[in-house]
This record gives sequence, C-alpha cells and structure tokens, in this order.
Amino acid sequence: MLTDCERLYLDHAATSWPKPAGVMQAVADFTLNCGASAGRGAYASAQAAGMILASVRRDLGRLIDAPSPDDISLHASGTLALNVAIAGVLRPGDHVVATATDHNSVLRPLHHFCKHRDVDWTVVKCDAAGRVDPSSIIDAVGPRTRLVAVSHVSNVTGTVQDINAIADSLSGRDALFLVDAAQSLGWIPVDVQVGIDLLAAPCHKALRGPAGTAMLYCAPAVQAQLNTMVFGGTGSYSESLEMPTRYPDRLEAGSLNVPAFAGVAHAVGRLRSDQENKTTNASSIGRQLSERIHAGLHSLPGVTVLGTPGPVPVVSFAIDGMPPADVAAVLDAEFQIEVRAGYHCAALIHSHLPTGDLGTVRVSAGHETTTDQIDRFLQAVEAIAVSMQP
Amino acid sequence: MLTDCERLYLDHAATSWPKPAGVMQAVADFTLNCGASAGRGAYASAQAAGMILASVRRDLGRLIDAPSPDDISLHASGTLALNVAIAGVLRPGDHVVATATDHNSVLRPLHHFCKHRDVDWTVVKCDAAGRVDPSSIIDAVGPRTRLVAVSHVSNVTGTVQDINAIADSLSGRDALFLVDAAQSLGWIPVDVQVGIDLLAAPCHKALRGPAGTAMLYCAPAVQAQLNTMVFGGTGSYSESLEMPTRYPDRLEAGSLNVPAFAGVAHAVGRLRSDQENKTTNASSIGRQLSERIHAGLHSLPGVTVLGTPGPVPVVSFAIDGMPPADVAAVLDAEFQIEVRAGYHCAALIHSHLPTGDLGTVRVSAGHETTTDQIDRFLQAVEAIAVSMQP
Repeated sequence: MLTDCERLYLDHAATSWPKPAGVMQAVADFTLNCGASAGRGAYASAQAAGMILASVRRDLGRLIDAPSPDDISLHASGTLALNVAIAGVLRPGDHVVATATDHNSVLRPLHHFCKHRDVDWTVVKCDAAGRVDPSSIIDAVGPRTRLVAVSHVSNVTGTVQDINAIADSLSGRDALFLVDAAQSLGWIPVDVQVGIDLLAAPCHKALRGPAGTAMLYCAPAVQAQLNTMVFGGTGSYSESLEMPTRYPDRLEAGSLNVPAFAGVAHAVGRLRSDQENKTTNASSIGRQLSERIHAGLHSLPGVTVLGTPGPVPVVSFAIDGMPPADVAAVLDAEFQIEVRAGYHCAALIHSHLPTGDLGTVRVSAGHETTTDQIDRFLQAVEAIAVSMQP
Repeated sequence: MLTDCERLYLDHAATSWPKPAGVMQAVADFTLNCGASAGRGAYASAQAAGMILASVRRDLGRLIDAPSPDDISLHASGTLALNVAIAGVLRPGDHVVATATDHNSVLRPLHHFCKHRDVDWTVVKCDAAGRVDPSSIIDAVGPRTRLVAVSHVSNVTGTVQDINAIADSLSGRDALFLVDAAQSLGWIPVDVQVGIDLLAAPCHKALRGPAGTAMLYCAPAVQAQLNTMVFGGTGSYSESLEMPTRYPDRLEAGSLNVPAFAGVAHAVGRLRSDQENKTTNASSIGRQLSERIHAGLHSLPGVTVLGTPGPVPVVSFAIDGMPPADVAAVLDAEFQIEVRAGYHCAALIHSHLPTGDLGTVRVSAGHETTTDQIDRFLQAVEAIAVSMQP
C-alpha cells in the first residue's frame, strides 16, 4: 500500500485543477480593484470591465481562427452555450444528426426537442473504441437535416473525431455543423474556418480558466438564424422590449461574470502565446500522458482499457469483477487519487463499449500532470487489480 | 471643483463593490485548495464541493424562510433564474400580469412569450413615484392568469412594492406569484411563506457575493409544474436522455460555479448572522442612505428627484437642461463618481415618470457607503446643477 498522502487530482475532464499561476490573481485583481459590471455604465471602471470582455473575445476568437472577436458570445457554462446554440437554430420539422459519443449537454436538449418540438434525430453509432465514421454521419444527413452535432473528443474515452473530414463532407449542404469542443479546446488546435458553423466550449476545462465560464462561436453567416433563448437586460436599447439585434449582445442577457472572464483572459492569453511561440505543445503533452496511461493500464491483469492513445489524456477502464464506483472509491480512500466512475453524463456511448452497462472508471490528466503522478496512479490500480485476481 | 481623486463607486444596484472582507478569500481558498466539480464525482474533494452548494442552499433558504434548502436552485445570473422561472411555468393560452416597474429580465422574456408562444399579458401601471397599487394588480388577474410577476424594488427609483399585500390578495387564486427580488434581497427581509411561489435574485448585488451567482426559490407545491429550460449533464441518472425528476437537480444542468458560491456562502452566512444577532440592520442603513440622498438632491436648484426615501438606497434624478448621460459623464470625468445614466434596463417605467423619455441618472449606494461619500456626491451634483442655472 502506498503511503503517499498527497491528493492526486485526475478528474481534469470535469474541470482543470490547479489553474495556471496568475489566473486566480487576475480574478482577485479585478474583483478588488475594479469590480464594475460591464456594458451597464459609461464610467471608467465599467469601461475597464468591458475591455476585459473584449480582450477575452479577441483571444478566444484567435485561438479558433474566428473571423471576428464578435463571433464569440460568452456564457456561464458549456452546457448553456450548447443549449443556446441548439435552441437557437432548431425549428419544428427539422432533422438532427448526433453521435453516440455526445455528452448529455448535447443529447438531452436534442432529446427534448425531439419529444416536444417536432424535431427528429438520427444518432450515429461509434465503434468499441469510441470512433465515429465520418461517412456514417454524412449518410445520415438528409434534406431536412438542420444540424449535425458532434463531440470533438469523447469525455469518456478521449477519442478524437475527425471534425475536419466531417466539415469537408458537409460543405455545400444546408445542415449546420455544431462542434462540442468541451474536451478538445486547450489540447488540440481547432480552426473553425474548416467549415464549423457553431462551436461551444467551457473555458474552465483544458483552457484552464476559472469556473463559470464558456464560449460559443457562431459563424457570421449563421448569426441571423440563431434565435435568442435567454431574454433580459443587455445594457443596450433598454427602452425596448425586444432584445437588441446586434450579435453577440442578443445572446448575452444579464450581467456577465467579468471577474471570471478576467481569469480566462489570463489563461487563454498564456495558452495562445505558448502556442505561437511553440514554447509548449499541449497536444504532445496530452499524447505522452495518454500513451503512458494506456500502456500502463494495458499491462495490468484483469484490466480492460477503452480506446486508443491520443492527444487528450482522458482514459476509461474497468477492472474485472469490481464495479467502477468501487474502484474509484478505493482509489480515493486508500490512495487519495481522485477519478470518476459511472456514465460520465454520456448516455449513449456505453452500449457500444465493451464495458457495457456498468459504466467505466475515468482517469483524466491535466497539462501539468507529471509522469511520476501517472505512475503513482498506475501502481494504485495495479494493487487493486492484483487483489481482484483469483 | 473638488480635488478628491479617490474613485467613488455608487452603482451598487448593478453590482456591489467592494465585497465584504472574506468573500474573495473564500473564492480563492476553494479554487486553490479544492477546485473540484460538485455532483460529478464521489471522491472527497468533489464531496467537499457539494457541501458548499448544500450550505449555500441552506443559508439562502433560511434567509427567505424557504421550507427546505432544496427549494433553492442555483444559477449564473438573476436573469437566468427569471428566465428559468418564466419559461418553466408558462403554457400556450396563459395570461400574465406584470408591472411597469419590472426590469427587462422579466419584461423581455414575457414579451417573447406573448409574441411567439400564445401568451398574453397585462402590464399594470405605476404612479409617478414608481408605486404600483396592489389592488390594480388583483384587478388585472383573470381566470387564465397563470403568473403575476412583480419587481419587489424598482431598480430605477428604489420604490418598494407591497409584496405581502399582493401575496395576500392572490391567496386562493390559481395564479402563481413571482417576485423579482434583485434589488431587495440583502436590504429588506423577505419571507416567501407569505404566499410567494417563485422568487429570483442575483447573489452579487445586495447579498454581496461574487459575480456569476443567483438563486431561484420555487415553492414545493409548484416544483412539479416547473418545466426545464436548460438541458444537460447533472451528474445524476447519466445513462438517461431525460433530465432527472429530482428538484432542484433538473434545473441545474451543467457544472455549477462552486468557487463563486463558496463566496456567496461566506457573504450570506455573515448577513444571516448579522440579521439574527441584530448587529446590523440593513434596512435601517439603507433608509438612512436613501433619506440623505433624497434630502440632499431635493435641496438643489433644477434637480428633479424621483420617488420617496425607502430602505433601498437606489435613487434616480435629473438636472434641468442636461441629458442624464452628460451628468453621469461629468460626475465620472471630473469627480471620479461612478453612477449610471439612461433607462437602466427597465423599458416601461420611464413613460410614467416625470423625467419621461430621457431616462434618469441613477445613484445607488452600498452597505458600507458612508455619509461623507454621499455628501461628496451631493456636492458634485450641486456644482453641476448650479453651473446649469441661468
């Protein structure tokens, strides 16, 4: 039994922790020194708050090669951003294509629209490794298909879908392409100009900003089709009962969380400069971590590992004879290793995986997770797996 | 001309600043030491995150005398909480009663439902002081009235509506009573058991928590009628495409902003203990500030003051011959005093006010605003008002 008592957090797919140096300081600095609401006053500190939001839009926009910073709307969670996108574009009579690897933040709103708003959908299968064949997505697109929703990276298996190939085959079709980049942005370069119409992502996962932050990209040509889901004060055209027509204002009713976005500005600014100066390469860090986890788990007796190594270090596994929840509980209680067990808010992927209806144990590493920490995790799993051997 | 160069923030109705000692520390402590997502894992730090949310629900619930902590759902803004409430209860064919003093976070979603979802509404007038006669609300209620929405305190004039009288007259009727407590909670004691079915409030205004936080109270008997607006992962029943039936989980899709709610727990815990120990009385502090602002402005030449003093120090005024935006700009540029000008995201109140279609200058004080600061503000307004005299 290991005696190392230090907490080992390996649930970065839920939220990253710790945040990069300076992120919390940026939140605190804004809160203590400015604190004003953005877009709600003309005085200097309200303007300063507005400048922070402008700089976040610019940095997030550049990160994904958006044509303009104003193609980025800011939201309080990736889930909200996805709901805003889905509720914004779907109309009665529409058909939607989704994938079995999608997160419930995509599947549940779509299911609701299918049940209550005269929408129908086709859910494209994945293979046992969580891979979706781009051609099976295109095959599912018909004349009524309004939306194709694809999770870029599975939050269960870490499997990367080939969004460039999907975008390419969708070009010339009427269907809009929505990418859920919750698990990819911050690990994998994303370029919306390959043909992505809508892209949603939280900013507190691999982008490493504070909690309560997310973004939605909407291509300029699609903005006019995006109906508003949340109505309220925008600090503009306040004498009107209508939301302003200006984008992205009309998606951003209510006071935005400026202190948290000050933290995002810091985190994303750093990520962009790392990317541009090639000082660090997130994809290669992610791949090394993923390969080490995969190789280590594969070598253990009675351990089933899902998927294959890739640039996002999210890996699911199971130990023969031990329910995933018990594995996670022992890792926490005896080894102070924090991983998740269960279905991971992904309702449909499990019936395609060899682990089946029991769900999985999911380990997800972060940008600063060390190989020593991975090895400590692997030793702990080994101890459990060996104890389960007959 | 005053030479005091210190910034004087008097826009507390937008968001309070600075926050009480310890609030930012609570956010930082959670972020640095725990950082886990709540409801998404069973490990110890995820449980600790869950405990913070439980304690916030308990403290917010006690503050308004909610029957149970689980009658409180947590949201990212007061606007979202109001949208969740309004979209949750309205059905085609419903009638709604609202008031001219309501904020756009109430009026704009209602307007949307009237335009697109077969709902109709009656907007009850206010007088020139922003007062709504409770009997005119009851007169507007008919057999189809599903919802009566009232802003407890006007964010333009600080006028307090008699929600107890309104609740009383609605008792025995089918209409649900929704209170927008954005400007009252933290200044005025609120007891939902007088007959309030739904109550929404941000936690970053007079409750003095961090940005990005809000609450919705829903009476136990009404919860089953509240449809879900935002769909996604809840960390529960993840294998299902349906949202969980459990309340408030089914209103809280997506990761909640636990660090910010750790700050709310600190702020509201302090407010409750102040209230219970009678160490400070927010309403009496608010009334003193309001009276001083009203009396001071009334004594100035060419200044029109709206409403009457009350427990919430939000006051609107105008200076003859000078557009409100210019008054606010001079206060900022020459006196470093930060107030707001315009319509204040309240589309309908202005046609009932003597300031009319120009909007107002709004000054709003906070719990720690001093009389010296109010006097500095009054001297600045005096200098401007005198300069405008013929």
